[in-house]
This record gives sequence, structure tokens and C-alpha cells, in this order.
Amino acid sequence: MILLNGRLIRDTILPGLIARFEALPYKPVLAIIQAGDRPDSTAFIAAKKNFAAKLGVEVKHMAVSADISQKELMAIVHECNADNSIHGIIVQLPLPIAIDTDAIIDAIDARKDVDGLTATQVKRWLSGREDAVMSATARGIRTLLKQNSIELFGKKVTVVGRSLLVGKPIIAMCLNENATVTVCHSKTADLASETKRADILIVAAGKPGLITPSHVSPGQIVVDVGISRGADNTLVGDVDFEAVKDSVAAISPVPGGVGPMTVCSLFENLADLCEQWRVQ
Amino acid sequence: MILLNGRLIRDTILPGLIARFEALPYKPVLAIIQAGDRPDSTAFIAAKKNFAAKLGVEVKHMAVSADISQKELMAIVHECNADNSIHGIIVQLPLPIAIDTDAIIDAIDARKDVDGLTATQVKRWLSGREDAVMSATARGIRTLLKQNSIELFGKKVTVVGRSLLVGKPIIAMCLNENATVTVCHSKTADLASETKRADILIVAAGKPGLITPSHVSPGQIVVDVGISRGADNTLVGDVDFEAVKDSVAAISPVPGGVGPMTVCSLFENLADLCEQWRVQ
Repeated sequence: MILLNGRLIRDTILPGLIARFEALPYKPVLAIIQAGDRPDSTAFIAAKKNFAAKLGVEVKHMAVSADISQKELMAIVHECNADNSIHGIIVQLPLPIAIDTDAIIDAIDARKDVDGLTATQVKRWLSGREDAVMSATARGIRTLLKQNSIELFGKKVTVVGRSLLVGKPIIAMCLNENATVTVCHSKTADLASETKRADILIVAAGKPGLITPSHVSPGQIVVDVGISRGADNTLVGDVDFEAVKDSVAAISPVPGGVGPMTVCSLFENLADLCEQWRVQ
Repeated sequence: MILLNGRLIRDTILPGLIARFEALPYKPVLAIIQAGDRPDSTAFIAAKKNFAAKLGVEVKHMAVSADISQKELMAIVHECNADNSIHGIIVQLPLPIAIDTDAIIDAIDARKDVDGLTATQVKRWLSGREDAVMSATARGIRTLLKQNSIELFGKKVTVVGRSLLVGKPIIAMCLNENATVTVCHSKTADLASETKRADILIVAAGKPGLITPSHVSPGQIVVDVGISRGADNTLVGDVDFEAVKDSVAAISPVPGGVGPMTVCSLFENLADLCEQWRVQ
């Protein structure tokens, strides 16, 4: 079994990425807007800050109260759009329930949308445009596979999950890479038969332990996108790693698989945008 | 074999649709902007005009030269956006090569986007929002199946084709209806094995005769979205209808299947927008 080690690949990419940021004629700045103080959001932001520090990217963490109004939050996004010293904008999700998330996200200037979540970027990645900002998770998976010499072209890929934030960008990425893609979800009648027939199985359901030995087949490559908190607060994926690992050809662990690749790809997106637009 | 007769279903829907337009406190107007004079575009526009006449919808056909500039075409879109007497806008595709199609389409006010092609609407239908304007083809297929008592929920659907205009909206529609969806295309290694295993096969490849008896299986439902011109200028689909029809449970013909449903659904989209927004 080959371990698809995201930390290792991330560290391989790091020097080139540092060089890209150093080559810019300004210090790149990433704004992260956080409404409220969900511990999971705070942990994700901490991971981004840590990695940014290694890259020489400044993170402007704008933490506001969970009871901020739509209008006030919108004003912050507009300020970040107008501020030429800010090159990328993240609105940390999920937002408080009272907020119209789509309206906030779509207000981000597409040229600063490092998450690829604005309507403009969604349409671009869905149609496979070269200038699209892909979701960091989808890009991270693509890199994790490529760096392990695993081709998507012509392969049978099964994706479990269909959310706009995770599943759909992965589906689009695989189609853009010319894979034949099957999409499964909670209403799929016979999940195991759909997952077993895949050359590459990508699981983004957010359900710990969903994938067991009866869902996989020998020779298969398994990518686990799930990140949930286990009983003892450890990170767990959607795949029962210990039970499955010896039945497949390659598998990504959680933590240490897609997670580190996602953080890394987010900053690759930022580097692309900085080079494309030279905002400052 | 059951024939999925689009003309019949369209005629069933017609009276209710007429009533919806009659109930509006104004005469609905659909603007169709055509750059150049491609015969296929002219034929599609004629079909829309014919159906609009039955519905009491006024079509404002704005025909301009194929060598119109980006700026001039953009100005026409902006005029239509600003004109409160216009309730829906179609920019007939394909546009001349010199035109940036995405920029023109995305300039359409999403509230008048009857084709569901603006970035705003693309993101909405991709995420399954209830207020999304779906592509007329995808909506037409959904109605054609529903009116024939064919459920998508939990079914295995194979979609052949992945274009932004046709394949992707169909994929999204099927996922929103809770089907398990496999997407095939020109790079799929073994097309027949993917098409045969489907409960419902939807073909939108634009390749006449692509689907032969070796691609289908008994009990299957086949929806043919292809519209090409045959040698004698007749309309032909992607499925070899005569060869396949007796091997499957149900099949839509070309012409007379998805085509009439698409025209009908376009005006259902217009009715939705008129009722949602009461532009005038």
C-alpha cells in the first residue's frame, strides 16, 4: 500500500511557492474574515496562518462578532475589495445562520477570490476555463495524485458527496482532467457497488467510518476528504483507514492527507491571483 | 417500448402556461439578441417565436450583424437590462468568434436570464437552490420524465456529454433530483459498459448515431438530447433510434422529444421570472 502523504507533498511544493511570493514586487496579504468564534473555524484559520508565515504571506485576520449584520459584513467585504494592499479574501465558512452566505461570498471581487467560491469563479471552474480559481480542496487532490504519478485521464472515478463547497468542485476537476466520473450521495441505492468499481475513489461525505472494507477493491486508490472530530477530539476521515489500508493500492490518511494539500493549494491560488492581476 | 413524446407533453402543459402569462398584469416580452445569421440559430429562434405566439408572449427579435463589436453587443444587453418592458433576455448562441461570450452572457441581469447561463444562475442551479433558473434543456428532460411517471430519485443515470450549456446542467439537475450520476465523454475508456449499466441514459454528445444497440440494455430509459442535421438536412439525434427502439423500455425521438420540451421549458422559466420579480 502506498500512503498518499499530503504533508510530504506539501513540503516538496513549499520552496517553489516561497520563491513565487518572493518574486512579487510587494508583500502579499490575505484577508480572512471570521464572524463568530467556532472552534473548528478558528483551527482552520490557525493552519492557514501557520502556513502563510512560512511563505512570507501576511494574514489580516478580521474577527467580528457572530451577531454582525448582513450590511456590516458586506461593508467589510467591500472594504477588502477596494483595498489595494489586500490580494486575497477568505470569508471563513460557515457564517452565522442569519447571514445570506451566497450574497456575502458573491460580493468578493473574483480577482481576490482564493477559494473559488464566487459565482464568477464557480462558472469558470465548472466550464474548465484555464483562468479559473479552483477550490483549494479539488486542486489539492489533483496535486496529491499527480505528485504520486496517479493519472486521472480516462480513469473511472467515484466521488461520494455533492456539496457545492467540496463535492461539486472535485467532480468538475475530475471531469476537466478527463476522468469518467460517478457521483454518489446519501440517496445512492447501492453505495458499495458504485465505490468498488472505481479506479479512484474520492470520499467527501463528512461521515466518519462511511467507507469500510466492503466498499473498496484491490488495486484501488482511495482519497479521503472527510474531516470530522472523533470522540477524543482527534481528526477522523470518512474512511475506516485501519480496516481498509491493506485492501487497496494507495490511500490518503486523515490527518496528513488532503488537509495539508488544501492549505497549500489555497496559497497556490493566491500566488496565481497575485501573478495574474498584480493588484498593487 | 414507450415513446417519450415531447410534443404531446408540451401540448399538455400549454393551457396552464397560457393561463400563467394571462394572469400577469402586463404583456410579457422576451428579447432575443442574434448576432449574424447562422441558419441553425435562425431555425431555433423561429421555433421560440412560434411557441411564444401561442402563449401570448411578445418576442422582440434584435438581429445584428455578425461583425458587431463586443462593446456594441454589450450595450444592447445593458439596454435590455434597463428596459422595464422586457422580462426575459436570450443571447442566441453561438456568438461570432471575435466576441467574448462569457462576458456578454454574464452581463445579462440574472432576473431576466431565462436560459440560466449567467454566473449567478449557474451557481444557483449547481447548488440546487429552489430559486435557480435551470437550463431549459435540463428542465425539459425533468418534465418529460415526470410526465411519463419516470422517477429520477435513487436511479442510476448515465449522462454522455459534459458541456457547460447542455451536459453540466443535466448532471446538476439529476443530482438535485437525487439520482446517482455517471458522466461519460469522448475520453471515456469503455462507453458501452457505462451506458448499459444505467437505469436512465441521457445522451447529449452531439454525435449522430453514437448510441447503438450495443450501448443499451433491456428495461432502460433513453433520452436523446442530440440535435444535428443529417445528410438530407433532417434533424438527427445521438441515438440510432430505429436500431435501438425495440431493445429498451422507453425512448425519446429526435425530432419530437427533448426539442419541444426545451422550447416549452424556456417559457416556463420566463413565467417563473415574471411571477418572481414583476419587473414592470
